[in-house]
Amino acid sequence: MPELRKDPIIGRWVIVATERARRPGNIVESLDQGIRGKKEDCAYCQEQKTILFSKKIPSRGKTPSSEIRVISYAKSFFKTDVNVQRHFHGLYEIVKGFGMDELVIETPEHMTYTPDFSVDHLTALLNVYAARIKTIVKNPDIQHVLVYKNYGALAGSQMTGHSCSRVVGMPVIPFHVKEKLSGAQDYFKKQRRCVYCDMIKQEIAAKTRVILENKNFVALTPFAARFLFEVWILPKKHSCDFTDSSQSVQKDLAAILKSLLQKVREGLGDPAYNFVIQTAPIGMREENNIKNYYHWHIEILPRLTRVAGFEKGTGFYINSIPPEATAEFLRGVP
Amino acid sequence: MPELRKDPIIGRWVIVATERARRPGNIVESLDQGIRGKKEDCAYCQEQKTILFSKKIPSRGKTPSSEIRVISYAKSFFKTDVNVQRHFHGLYEIVKGFGMDELVIETPEHMTYTPDFSVDHLTALLNVYAARIKTIVKNPDIQHVLVYKNYGALAGSQMTGHSCSRVVGMPVIPFHVKEKLSGAQDYFKKQRRCVYCDMIKQEIAAKTRVILENKNFVALTPFAARFLFEVWILPKKHSCDFTDSSQSVQKDLAAILKSLLQKVREGLGDPAYNFVIQTAPIGMREENNIKNYYHWHIEILPRLTRVAGFEKGTGFYINSIPPEATAEFLRGVP
Repeated sequence: MPELRKDPIIGRWVIVATERARRPGNIVESLDQGIRGKKEDCAYCQEQKTILFSKKIPSRGKTPSSEIRVISYAKSFFKTDVNVQRHFHGLYEIVKGFGMDELVIETPEHMTYTPDFSVDHLTALLNVYAARIKTIVKNPDIQHVLVYKNYGALAGSQMTGHSCSRVVGMPVIPFHVKEKLSGAQDYFKKQRRCVYCDMIKQEIAAKTRVILENKNFVALTPFAARFLFEVWILPKKHSCDFTDSSQSVQKDLAAILKSLLQKVREGLGDPAYNFVIQTAPIGMREENNIKNYYHWHIEILPRLTRVAGFEKGTGFYINSIPPEATAEFLRGVP
Repeated sequence: MPELRKDPIIGRWVIVATERARRPGNIVESLDQGIRGKKEDCAYCQEQKTILFSKKIPSRGKTPSSEIRVISYAKSFFKTDVNVQRHFHGLYEIVKGFGMDELVIETPEHMTYTPDFSVDHLTALLNVYAARIKTIVKNPDIQHVLVYKNYGALAGSQMTGHSCSRVVGMPVIPFHVKEKLSGAQDYFKKQRRCVYCDMIKQEIAAKTRVILENKNFVALTPFAARFLFEVWILPKKHSCDFTDSSQSVQKDLAAILKSLLQKVREGLGDPAYNFVIQTAPIGMREENNIKNYYHWHIEILPRLTRVAGFEKGTGFYINSIPPEATAEFLRGVP
């Protein structure tokens, strides 16, 4: 049974597999396979036995296979059949790996990827994420729900050749999310304003880091970007909760997301990337006026370079191209 | 001129190159070369024009080439000829890339690596690190000095074929260091004890995660290890400052370091790794009783797996082998 372990010094949770069966071996080789799966072998092309949720993809035929399907992710580190008990061993805190880990099969079609989807299809996908989050947070042991997507082997994708994403409900709040919350809260305490709202205002005025904009969203490269071509998509209207968005707002998001992913694919040669929805953790919704100070957003992290040791060991990232230049480049990609 | 940019939300500093000359291009290819350099082409085999510091390697001949040599790192993001001025643009804080970046040529011999060095040679190398830190911190604009080593292309090494490490003085405190300091300070406030001292006590009693031990040091896999085979070396006696160690303590450290690096090389098939000395930042030495709550240590981070998107986007690391198993495995390597 996997478990969550808390670093006793900085408080970061780490998921640790505890099956001693897996021995240190040729780990590098086993993770380095980057071959895209064939349609014949693809489990996600086939009909799924247990569908948790499904949604029709608009403007498609009425066959059952023209749906976005959500299934339970079989290989997950998080299991639903455990109790969320906290254990302490001296300094150390452990939570058993309880959680809900769902796999979203974004399309019935093999080898069709997110930027190829129509805006209506992408809107439906965002609706599916929101619906699953709303269901998962009903479990009182869930503290946070993470929606993310890995594309390409370098980004940690399993390269099945089938476009998938994940919705994961977990019993703790990830460190990176906590950092953002705590920083935004500090800013709010001093300024009585949302730091993200202030940032959006400054960025739209400066223009240099803005890539795309529509009525409800802005896509930009962050001022202190950790990664080359890191992009954030932020709703212009303040909201801490991704699931609060109306259908027209979701459609605007789908449109900006599609354009952006197309630019990344065309401009950067179809790189691996990660996509994460950063929304307020359910476990803190009622606390400390989180509604006032947190602002949900999406991070898109292309994986163009290996993270060097310097960054890894120190948390000190080196970005070898200024975000202004990457924004300018992406603006120019048709 | 590179600059340091502070993330306005979480306060993390990022080094950003600002030369617009470097255009987005075939970035992946240019960083992916993993070929070890030939002796004929190796700049570090040749006599160095400007040596900042040198130290004789014990039990070697008296030729000038039997020395550890320290030179200024030419390709550094940090430059000595800039003023440390802080600028604000609205929300954003920038510090010009002032800093001291030194390259330690660990040995005159090409293709001889750290685990091959004698204990006396390694002790001399640790002495060099301490001497350079002591010199660099005399500059009042330096807030922190980082000593690290990248071995292998996956760890960000330039693969010159010549064993080198870096000593970098910087005008800000890296985020990962700040996290450790703040966590240790919180613990001290509550418990009036050093969290690292408590951890060492618990680990030595439990034995399961201890790999090696000698009079002054313990090497262990941390309870909430982020990476497979992550190892920390900690001094048993409380001290916040790496440079405070006596010669006999440095020799003990050299001995444990040599054994550990040999185990990593033999047991894991000569993997890429990063090595970082985590010592108290000079900019905070006088503050908040840092001497009481911080405990210097070394982190060794083998790079056996690609960091997947889940980790990258969320700060939520997944470790697929429990640290108890990796410790047991490394204990067993002769």
